[in-house]
Amino acid sequence: MTLRGQGTAAPVHARIAVVGAAGYTGQEFVRLALGHPGLELATICSLDCVGRPASELLPGLDPRVPLLPRVVDSSALEALLGDGTFDTLVCCLPHGVWAKLAAERPALAGGAARIVDLSSDHRDGSRGYVYGLPEVFRERIPPATRLANPGCYPTAATLALLPATAWLGGPVMVSALSGVSGAGRAATLRTSFVELDGGAALYRAGRVHAHVPEMERNLAGLAGKPVAVGFAPLLAPMARGILLTATAQLVRPVSPEEAWAAYSEQYANERFVRLLDPGEWPETRSVRGSNRCDVAVTTLHGGTTLLAAAAIDNLVKGAAGQAVQNLNLMLGWPEDQGLPLHGDPW
Amino acid sequence: MTLRGQGTAAPVHARIAVVGAAGYTGQEFVRLALGHPGLELATICSLDCVGRPASELLPGLDPRVPLLPRVVDSSALEALLGDGTFDTLVCCLPHGVWAKLAAERPALAGGAARIVDLSSDHRDGSRGYVYGLPEVFRERIPPATRLANPGCYPTAATLALLPATAWLGGPVMVSALSGVSGAGRAATLRTSFVELDGGAALYRAGRVHAHVPEMERNLAGLAGKPVAVGFAPLLAPMARGILLTATAQLVRPVSPEEAWAAYSEQYANERFVRLLDPGEWPETRSVRGSNRCDVAVTTLHGGTTLLAAAAIDNLVKGAAGQAVQNLNLMLGWPEDQGLPLHGDPW
Amino acid sequence: MTLRGQGTAAPVHARIAVVGAAGYTGQEFVRLALGHPGLELATICSLDCVGRPASELLPGLDPRVPLLPRVVDSSALEALLGDGTFDTLVCCLPHGVWAKLAAERPALAGGAARIVDLSSDHRDGSRGYVYGLPEVFRERIPPATRLANPGCYPTAATLALLPATAWLGGPVMVSALSGVSGAGRAATLRTSFVELDGGAALYRAGRVHAHVPEMERNLAGLAGKPVAVGFAPLLAPMARGILLTATAQLVRPVSPEEAWAAYSEQYANERFVRLLDPGEWPETRSVRGSNRCDVAVTTLHGGTTLLAAAAIDNLVKGAAGQAVQNLNLMLGWPEDQGLPLHGDPW
Amino acid sequence: MTLRGQGTAAPVHARIAVVGAAGYTGQEFVRLALGHPGLELATICSLDCVGRPASELLPGLDPRVPLLPRVVDSSALEALLGDGTFDTLVCCLPHGVWAKLAAERPALAGGAARIVDLSSDHRDGSRGYVYGLPEVFRERIPPATRLANPGCYPTAATLALLPATAWLGGPVMVSALSGVSGAGRAATLRTSFVELDGGAALYRAGRVHAHVPEMERNLAGLAGKPVAVGFAPLLAPMARGILLTATAQLVRPVSPEEAWAAYSEQYANERFVRLLDPGEWPETRSVRGSNRCDVAVTTLHGGTTLLAAAAIDNLVKGAAGQAVQNLNLMLGWPEDQGLPLHGDPW
Repeated sequence: MTLRGQGTAAPVHARIAVVGAAGYTGQEFVRLALGHPGLELATICSLDCVGRPASELLPGLDPRVPLLPRVVDSSALEALLGDGTFDTLVCCLPHGVWAKLAAERPALAGGAARIVDLSSDHRDGSRGYVYGLPEVFRERIPPATRLANPGCYPTAATLALLPATAWLGGPVMVSALSGVSGAGRAATLRTSFVELDGGAALYRAGRVHAHVPEMERNLAGLAGKPVAVGFAPLLAPMARGILLTATAQLVRPVSPEEAWAAYSEQYANERFVRLLDPGEWPETRSVRGSNRCDVAVTTLHGGTTLLAAAAIDNLVKGAAGQAVQNLNLMLGWPEDQGLPLHGDPW
Repeated sequence: MTLRGQGTAAPVHARIAVVGAAGYTGQEFVRLALGHPGLELATICSLDCVGRPASELLPGLDPRVPLLPRVVDSSALEALLGDGTFDTLVCCLPHGVWAKLAAERPALAGGAARIVDLSSDHRDGSRGYVYGLPEVFRERIPPATRLANPGCYPTAATLALLPATAWLGGPVMVSALSGVSGAGRAATLRTSFVELDGGAALYRAGRVHAHVPEMERNLAGLAGKPVAVGFAPLLAPMARGILLTATAQLVRPVSPEEAWAAYSEQYANERFVRLLDPGEWPETRSVRGSNRCDVAVTTLHGGTTLLAAAAIDNLVKGAAGQAVQNLNLMLGWPEDQGLPLHGDPW
Repeated sequence: MTLRGQGTAAPVHARIAVVGAAGYTGQEFVRLALGHPGLELATICSLDCVGRPASELLPGLDPRVPLLPRVVDSSALEALLGDGTFDTLVCCLPHGVWAKLAAERPALAGGAARIVDLSSDHRDGSRGYVYGLPEVFRERIPPATRLANPGCYPTAATLALLPATAWLGGPVMVSALSGVSGAGRAATLRTSFVELDGGAALYRAGRVHAHVPEMERNLAGLAGKPVAVGFAPLLAPMARGILLTATAQLVRPVSPEEAWAAYSEQYANERFVRLLDPGEWPETRSVRGSNRCDVAVTTLHGGTTLLAAAAIDNLVKGAAGQAVQNLNLMLGWPEDQGLPLHGDPW
Repeated sequence: MTLRGQGTAAPVHARIAVVGAAGYTGQEFVRLALGHPGLELATICSLDCVGRPASELLPGLDPRVPLLPRVVDSSALEALLGDGTFDTLVCCLPHGVWAKLAAERPALAGGAARIVDLSSDHRDGSRGYVYGLPEVFRERIPPATRLANPGCYPTAATLALLPATAWLGGPVMVSALSGVSGAGRAATLRTSFVELDGGAALYRAGRVHAHVPEMERNLAGLAGKPVAVGFAPLLAPMARGILLTATAQLVRPVSPEEAWAAYSEQYANERFVRLLDPGEWPETRSVRGSNRCDVAVTTLHGGTTLLAAAAIDNLVKGAAGQAVQNLNLMLGWPEDQGLPLHGDPW
């Protein structure tokens, strides 16, 4: 297998090993890869179901279709990399697990042609990982071989604020609602059906949520100065979706029309960001199952305060879909290849 | 029937006519009244089901229990007031309907010993209506005979901010999630099950929601100066509950400890407001079916920014329960009589 | 403490120890007991939260109200029984746990004036336990000191079929949908929010569900001959409620009118069973939070086939409410004391 | 445009007019057609949004993609048929509407090369419509130009019972749970979020549901004798999915193994029917968004009673997906072209 860089012909296929395939982001990646013309699922890896068909791991897959390899333990990965079974590693592990595994298995961490890590382990750019938010840092992605896929909340927050970063004149307050799949697939009382159905809960509000530094890093990089973020995340009784609002004082009055025009210009050619008409506000259903981010913006109080909003599917644009978008860029393919644009609201 | 003022013995019973009993706030009022020792449901009034048992109007009521009168049309109310069938009118009508009805029926609007209006028609204090938020304006309520019950979002926002109003140094941003019963019981595509299940939608964000002036009025009255409010309400896939966060710049740095202490002092003797411990944040389930408001507070960014949160049941503390609390005060009864304190989370 | 039998004055209070209070049936029992004039919550017992306030165990309870004792470990029960802290034991433990505990602690199992066991451990009448389904075996309950509370599905199935047992001419097929709280409060992937929201699952269909023998025992006792039961239970995305249909061939043609008349006569004086009008069918919301069972019946195919249906709240009439109903009978109190009749549909 | 019959080359594209595109089955058809290589959406027709982009009619569609024509009124259809804009009419109208329209517009009803009607208007075979359940009547579909798409409940019931029809020895009892989209998209109080969330309701039980004759017709045709059906449908709080059980006395004892073997043989080559392993039972999530029907079977009581179960997505295999499957057959294309096999459980 030869890894081709930019300028040479794009490879026709990437042979993927998915690690952590039983989790929600892992399953979503598998489903997207099944419908993607260039991504070949070469290896499925999970602690559960080793040796069983992948369909037992992934509810809904028809087991009669021999699309998927049997599930292997991660200890088999080096050999499978060595014999060319896969060339590209997609890590859908809980935070901290891949960093630990990579340290223990240098041949794996060093040998894969491409690694896309959906955890937060290397979003700070450590160990050569490139932060893969295409709408902000598109040019950095094609040359990358190690890519840190952004967090779900930071994706929505950054896209909600990107065109306004030059105007930010104070701390940004981000309020966001998330569907329960954002909490991962581990069985906990807190994410049990009876404990969640019919109610909503604020949690880790203030500056204690792990996504605050990632948001501040993104915004500071864009604003060219430190930007403090306050964050109020809440869990709503729904499986998928993030709906986020962001507000901030501005350095100068910006009319609603000027704000909307700036957003419109920024996102005019972005296939996966849609700016809503003035007076319309996003909802998660429009982007359910889609890699799209819907954005809306206005200003309040004589233009002194920004109010922006964004909706994404946390498992798609907030995780597995964005990973595919990044892989498309890394592999020299059309950025939207194999990615759903339309949402499936029900 | 003799209306007793304060200073004389409290009446043992109030004979209630509920107008608009088929809506969600009307039903909730009926259910609370059925369990209240002093509120006698004398007349149930609704456009639907005239002449039929009230149990057909109110799902869940066992029709074999002769607790409830038959449903009458509102045209019967003057005669029923005249013959002493009821003395207290509780209006659970859509906004605008009671104001119109009152203008057409002066004998009804003028003759009832007490009127509690759950709509927004007179929350500005017009026509002698007293704004009934007991935790803020308790002393005004006992002498009132015409009472405007607060809106659900303004109740939660005002209780989230009340102890901090002296510190407010700029516009307040309120983000709030509401259950679907807040949209009323009219059948609309927007509130259909399939259109809402599994998703959340931001709507009327900015300053266009009808509750913005009510919030600004409450906060300005407490702060002693104008307070501008930005508002981002969203509909979540749940029947009941409001979960709200409010942020504002402060006129001086306030430490989290000082903020918490001020809230603690303010609410020490409030039976229906519970301040959560530092680091805990409210959820709607804890107050489901209860008249309680759970509040939490901290400050961010060196104490320059307030972050407060509140959860209520929009049908109880946000509507029918608060109406009972107000009636208890108007009638000289214990303020918590017949009101659920504990929430029923599932 | 003196235990009074029938014929002597009923005791004014029972001092209750609840074991397994953190589970869904345990919590529901605590909530019902808090509103019951005769049940005093003397001891709360749970593996979790020992030494902490009961409000930490039971979401929604306002912790400022000193209604509840601190949580103790079950090892403290013998001493608390010995010093008269409690006299009545209510076991809300998973199946098998109380039987084991009782064998290990004869002083506890033998010394309590009354024991109500909500598990299936003694529903076969072993160890002197009386099966407590009041609408069927009412006369057996007042003298009982050891009571086995029926299962949720068998309660609904037995009440759906009770008036028809003389006509049963073949196997009974029971299809039933249950809310997720019926699966208990242990955190499992299967009962996680994301795994359940938006879907329904059939499980353990046929004759393998543990409730089949309990249904067959009840029906055989009533029919005076063996009655075979097939069972198709399914889990629906809702927290509470059982909705059940039962069908059977009949020994002779019974017209819909005759069937309805027999049901009407059977349930005429049952406060907690309501027969719906012909052509109406039950729904779980009408009985949510209520101790009521709604029943409907017709016959099909020239009267040769019975179709009966029932709805209950699995945590109330299917568990904790029925336990209170049984305690009321055991203590010589009005059978409906402290029990909600009306349902709270949303 | 030339319509090719069988024996000649299959057409590369069908140009589709969708009538009733705003309803749930209409939207689902549009979404499936957008991903289908042979179905070109030529005309979108709806009472709502005439003259507006189709994306306003169909939530989730990205309006920036010029895939869809503007919405037209049905009065424009004859002209659009005449000028060759479309050749194939897909009717997603409420029951009765297409039959009425067809009578009023003979040029439309007679002129379209193909008509697929998703309503119940012609499922009895009237006016030359062929009943399109491919797994049962596959050979009838390719020559058809007028096709009646089966109902959702009858599809699931027939596939659950098809391999057992020779054994049926008495009335069949069908119990089925449906998601709310089965009730259509008209705004009604009964299908409002608050009225449905958290509860389940039995409705039109017995023999009064409109799908009973369709089930009886299918089963009688297969069994070669009349088969009486009793039906207990219920609405569960979920958007999509049907989960159905069917039971019947058998003419002779059939062991669980024999029953499973017969089902296995029947469905061995059916791409859209999957027989579950013995002891496993279907759930709706596995088939969500998929055109697959999952089936399970056993026998009870010494083989005298059949217990079969099936799960489908009511909008896919129960409506729009089956319409595409039928169109594939009518057009001489691979039967599974453009149809999702895997389910998307969350």
